Amino acid sequence: MEGADHRRERSTRFAAAPPRYYRGVPSLIECVPNFSEGRRPEVLDEITRAISQIDGVTLLDFSRDETHNRSVVTFAGNAEPVVRAATAAVGRALELIDMTVHTGAHPRIGAVDVIPFVPLGTTRLSECVDLARRFGELVAKTYGLPVYLYGEAALRPERRRLADVRRGQYEGLKAEIGVNPERDPDYGPARLHPKGGAVAVGARKPLIAFNVNLTTDDVAVAKRIAHAIRESSGGLPAVQAMGLLLENPGERSFAQVSMNLVDWERTGIAAAVREVRRLALEAGADVDHCELVGLAPTGALLEVASDALRLREFSPDQALELRLARDR
Amino acid sequence: MEGADHRRERSTRFAAAPPRYYRGVPSLIECVPNFSEGRRPEVLDEITRAISQIDGVTLLDFSRDETHNRSVVTFAGNAEPVVRAATAAVGRALELIDMTVHTGAHPRIGAVDVIPFVPLGTTRLSECVDLARRFGELVAKTYGLPVYLYGEAALRPERRRLADVRRGQYEGLKAEIGVNPERDPDYGPARLHPKGGAVAVGARKPLIAFNVNLTTDDVAVAKRIAHAIRESSGGLPAVQAMGLLLENPGERSFAQVSMNLVDWERTGIAAAVREVRRLALEAGADVDHCELVGLAPTGALLEVASDALRLREFSPDQALELRLARDR
Repeated sequence: MEGADHRRERSTRFAAAPPRYYRGVPSLIECVPNFSEGRRPEVLDEITRAISQIDGVTLLDFSRDETHNRSVVTFAGNAEPVVRAATAAVGRALELIDMTVHTGAHPRIGAVDVIPFVPLGTTRLSECVDLARRFGELVAKTYGLPVYLYGEAALRPERRRLADVRRGQYEGLKAEIGVNPERDPDYGPARLHPKGGAVAVGARKPLIAFNVNLTTDDVAVAKRIAHAIRESSGGLPAVQAMGLLLENPGERSFAQVSMNLVDWERTGIAAAVREVRRLALEAGADVDHCELVGLAPTGALLEVASDALRLREFSPDQALELRLARDR
Repeated sequence: MEGADHRRERSTRFAAAPPRYYRGVPSLIECVPNFSEGRRPEVLDEITRAISQIDGVTLLDFSRDETHNRSVVTFAGNAEPVVRAATAAVGRALELIDMTVHTGAHPRIGAVDVIPFVPLGTTRLSECVDLARRFGELVAKTYGLPVYLYGEAALRPERRRLADVRRGQYEGLKAEIGVNPERDPDYGPARLHPKGGAVAVGARKPLIAFNVNLTTDDVAVAKRIAHAIRESSGGLPAVQAMGLLLENPGERSFAQVSMNLVDWERTGIAAAVREVRRLALEAGADVDHCELVGLAPTGALLEVASDALRLREFSPDQALELRLARDR
């Protein structure tokens, strides 16, 4: 078939039927701790060093925000190394961050404010739920830190939403913990850690941060579209959205629909963009271009390719590197 | 940032600028040997067993064609296991296939007709060229088999095209080898192997087999488009194409433009489909849907997603599993 009748190479078959949304590397867990420190880079350096020193963990990303006085670190690995790295990071943060003097724009309850575990590859969300609970118990015991379980890992339904766990923030929780039994932690003492406060530990699916920039600079259009598509106002499932103006000094400004797709198997990138475009056209505008922020599951991007080409009988297993990552 | 102001997660940065088309898993080589046997499944079983017995090799795909009396096997791994597996496969084929009694529609010169090595991940084509030459020398010596180097691995410019190496096929080569010095092999004796004939060994880039099915069943439209886009008649670089009628008994038939993209970094899937669509619209038809045949580099599919969404500043490194595969 090489070089001659290329038609025959098309009878290629696959050994086994792959799942519809195979997501690649097996048995991996992502961890995305948020730290209440965004103004001292040396503190973030210490924390990322504590994480990357653990064998079997890959540091994927970090960001630091001075206004929020907050940083986010993303790393991944198998369950055991991820737990070791997260535990080490909590230890370092409790030494280096003092909540009694912390100020910042973002809601927070502790030096390590929130630690979500996210399934990658063939890992199931339920494995992350189990891991979050096991990890919560461990850090509570190791550091005498009150731990609140949230998201899919919540033990009490009223703690599923992180905003409810964080109600009143560090200062409010300090006044209520040990007094109001409703604020008792799931693990650890019913009093704040002297400097570190408390921590929320949870499990969630991978999140895709995605922006659609419109051909207009009328922010009202973006705000209307965001309102129409977000799940909380009856729009698309598993979509969070807001409208804002993206100002580029000296360059063109764009009205932007900024989204989190919190479960791309319910609403994927292609479906979200199609709906934004439909609403933009109704408003006399259009999509100018898009931005993917940070990392996204490869499956979510392959779905966009498949959608754009109207591929028939496509499987993400046809992506060579994913196939190899699965089989090796 | 978890659950509250999702906007901030967008400041995510990457540690290092990735190459424009990062293709994932590092240092891997794909090997796609073609065997002159498509009618005895048990022979193909023996050959694939010889390959998959080698540690460090992943069998990715195989196909068997009775009309052509020919089979194609795809496997991958690091250089050394790939050489061991390819050598073992040649050995088995020389035992089990007898060219003196072989018939079939496809041009061929030997029991193992052609063995291309293909770079995956961060492997360079030049590494596959070196490997093809080293492997060619090895199998010539081990089995007393005449070896012709073709493609990027060719030592003589007139042997770059496989069709030129295969001129006259097995029967023609049998008459000329040892008589006409122009047909001397690059390695091994200037006479055919008693049963196995000769083999062409080469190196090439990954090939994408891709079909565009039109809304019409007028095969003349597909043939005209194929002629217009193929490189050999002045069309798109690195594109081979032909027009044919895809007949589905009892269902709708489609005129199909069937393509090989032999260097997707020169002409990618999105560009090829766009040109087919433009020409189809000119002919009063359109693209109905597409088919990807077999495997494709993940980067080629991510490029389609990026194109469809008009993503700004997108890097294939933003695909989580590829990033992990690179860093682990």
